[in-house]
Amino acid sequence: MIERRSGVALWRQIADRIRLAINSGDYDATGMMPAETVLAERFGVNRHTVRSALAALAEEGMVRAVQGVGTMIERRDRLTFPISRRTRFSQGLGDQAREIEGRLVRQGVERASPAVAAALGIATGTDCVRLETLALADGKPISLATSHFPAARFEGIGDQYRKTGSITKSLSALGVADYVRRSTEISAVHAEGEDVRLLKLSPGAILLVTTAINADAGGQAIQYSRSRFAADRVKFFVES
Amino acid sequence: MIERRSGVALWRQIADRIRLAINSGDYDATGMMPAETVLAERFGVNRHTVRSALAALAEEGMVRAVQGVGTMIERRDRLTFPISRRTRFSQGLGDQAREIEGRLVRQGVERASPAVAAALGIATGTDCVRLETLALADGKPISLATSHFPAARFEGIGDQYRKTGSITKSLSALGVADYVRRSTEISAVHAEGEDVRLLKLSPGAILLVTTAINADAGGQAIQYSRSRFAADRVKFFVES
Repeated sequence: MIERRSGVALWRQIADRIRLAINSGDYDATGMMPAETVLAERFGVNRHTVRSALAALAEEGMVRAVQGVGTMIERRDRLTFPISRRTRFSQGLGDQAREIEGRLVRQGVERASPAVAAALGIATGTDCVRLETLALADGKPISLATSHFPAARFEGIGDQYRKTGSITKSLSALGVADYVRRSTEISAVHAEGEDVRLLKLSPGAILLVTTAINADAGGQAIQYSRSRFAADRVKFFVES
Repeated sequence: MIERRSGVALWRQIADRIRLAINSGDYDATGMMPAETVLAERFGVNRHTVRSALAALAEEGMVRAVQGVGTMIERRDRLTFPISRRTRFSQGLGDQAREIEGRLVRQGVERASPAVAAALGIATGTDCVRLETLALADGKPISLATSHFPAARFEGIGDQYRKTGSITKSLSALGVADYVRRSTEISAVHAEGEDVRLLKLSPGAILLVTTAINADAGGQAIQYSRSRFAADRVKFFVES
């Protein structure tokens, strides 16, 4: 919604909405922005405001005015994914996407490897639920995560995830009202195998990989995840 | 130094020292660990302790015992670079490297682009010192950074850096006793151009890219940097 007394200039609000529309792929079919008159009508503002908004986006390098042709889209932004104590996939993207979706790719129970056991603070070989989940923003695959949860406490989390599409909601249904991100490791690799197919990447594409531990309010580690993000669609933001 | 009453088991201390030696490339010539007797003598411990240390490293996947051949090196660790309010390149790597070196590649004065100006909180077009710096750990190139500093306050930082090889020391010499990392963006791209040559990468190698803002104790932004890290040599760690 455009708010006329919000303290944020109208052209800035329009620029933000156009940016969201570009990043959501609204104009991918033509690679061009609609005419200023069309945008003005859509947003309920005058052409001057639309022109100021497009000028701001041009300065950012998102669009470019081409004489006699119109306003071309130069690039999309990468989605900015914040990494903090409050990191949650579904909320992290905020208003950068209209719709966040989580799909269960696969679930199973397996024994904790030494690495999983160390992360979760359990004995090697303890039963864990393993989930493979695919997150999409506005229908576009963003990340694939392999998560381990202690099975004694989180049996059934796969079915919860299938229903809700959200780790936060699944944990909540299993009694974890709140949790925090304890640590995140970030690396980058070339995508391989199933990741290429499920994330709809081109060969040789780069993955940003996070290895993260989440803990409940009592400090007990509850989730160990290795997530692969399409590096051309996402960047991370760490505020310190 | 091995400390016998430190509360850390001797084999664990030896494992840590061997890991450092592997990561520093001490055994790159052969790709093999020296014999247990040689390691025992070098570290002043018995063979049993060395064997326990190598077993721990084998479980991590760093080395592998090959029947009748010896202990092969499977992989090096990536250096772990912490990202926090106290991030400093020189101290961040801690005891993961024996020697950290910073080389000035290039310096100059240029007008702030809109992006640089926004990050530093100055007007577009204001003079900035631009430094290109190369950081090496144990002689191996780790990262290349392009940093901007307001020229009015930091003229001469290039010469300071050439002398000290450290941004922290250079800022200190120019009156900034302390500074903090305000924010860090992290993305990943394929390496191109000069980055490939200066970081001694192979074609198609991946760069982890950080875009960071440092501020002085008064909250004034003083440095805006875009750093490119060789992704096969470094990972980031965010504690939250």
